[in-house]
Amino acid sequence: MNHDSPKIPQATAKRLPLYYRFIQNLHSSGKQRVSSAELSEAVKVDSATIRRDFSYFGALGKKGYGYNVSYLLSFFRKTLDQDEITNVALIGVGNLGTAFLNYNFMKNNNTKIQIAFDVDEEKVGTVIGDVPIYHLDELEERLDLKEVPVAILTVPSSAAQGITDRLAEAQIKGILNFTPARLNVPPTIRVHHIDLAVELQSLVYFLKNYPDASDEKSE
Amino acid sequence: MNHDSPKIPQATAKRLPLYYRFIQNLHSSGKQRVSSAELSEAVKVDSATIRRDFSYFGALGKKGYGYNVSYLLSFFRKTLDQDEITNVALIGVGNLGTAFLNYNFMKNNNTKIQIAFDVDEEKVGTVIGDVPIYHLDELEERLDLKEVPVAILTVPSSAAQGITDRLAEAQIKGILNFTPARLNVPPTIRVHHIDLAVELQSLVYFLKNYPDASDEKSE
Repeated sequence: MNHDSPKIPQATAKRLPLYYRFIQNLHSSGKQRVSSAELSEAVKVDSATIRRDFSYFGALGKKGYGYNVSYLLSFFRKTLDQDEITNVALIGVGNLGTAFLNYNFMKNNNTKIQIAFDVDEEKVGTVIGDVPIYHLDELEERLDLKEVPVAILTVPSSAAQGITDRLAEAQIKGILNFTPARLNVPPTIRVHHIDLAVELQSLVYFLKNYPDASDEKSE
Repeated sequence: MNHDSPKIPQATAKRLPLYYRFIQNLHSSGKQRVSSAELSEAVKVDSATIRRDFSYFGALGKKGYGYNVSYLLSFFRKTLDQDEITNVALIGVGNLGTAFLNYNFMKNNNTKIQIAFDVDEEKVGTVIGDVPIYHLDELEERLDLKEVPVAILTVPSSAAQGITDRLAEAQIKGILNFTPARLNVPPTIRVHHIDLAVELQSLVYFLKNYPDASDEKSE
């Protein structure tokens, strides 16, 4: 926990990894300073929002000069604890799970999938993207939650709550839930829920009701 | 476009498909009325937010009685145009794309993937989850954007902008972008961006900085 970080709005916090990635790109390309308008163009967030987000962290830039890229980079690296890797378990090695294993967040990230679980005997004992796959029966035995505090849940909906209960019992800290199931967890466990069907439905709703996308500035 | 719908905040609009799904579940289970507290428990959104969201649509409930489930159901069905199916194209039949094709949003949804594209000759000509896969070279020829106004983009990052330019040229209306690339599109095209690495990074950030998840009510 960063005791020196102020409490910032959740919406701002969600944009930080995005800012960080683009500031890395700018830095790699040798750029030394950047305006909020340029950042806005790159990350597709309107520049007023960027300035407001950055204001929570104190004076990161100067009017008329923009932001110093190296300073931003070191600031975001510290804020996002990029130097410390968080290990992640993946539960459910279907198509979506396999996509995660192959991708494994290698670039520009502070997270690494270390271990995976499935019930399919053809998958158990294999390795995908350097990650070993164990049988779900061995979850409690294999998963050291001191080392791996986060799980990605890519199992069938019907299995989600049962596995969540086992993770909760073992005192997992966070779950990234890709099943349509809403999970019941103790208040100490943080669940972020990404429902792909809802995301698609939401896009369709916006297309029907706000057909002119240019009415809005941010995604 | 629903000319009778008021403009509602984007955050509210994003929750509508979620509400709709759970109201369907309630209705299927024979429940006739529901309180905002019960809805809150089911969808994991705090009840003050639910009441505020619902207030944009006028008086949907009565104090002390709660909401009438049948009324809510017909209201949300109408609002979300559930009776009208939106056809979707999927571009990129890798692991993530295959997950979408197998899932295909069949249950409780108003969207259907009708056609898919890839460059892999082993996939071209096959059918996954009833969806035919064509070669990406045939995109403009096969894709009737009058019938299929939305595309899901699950291609490698490096291919994303090129394909987006072709979709834009063909006047697609909406893109659900699962690549890490930020897409440049004309203002008339709506892009929703789901960056899986950013979602994971965001969860990790919250775990480090807000370790007590119970501080917050909504996901």
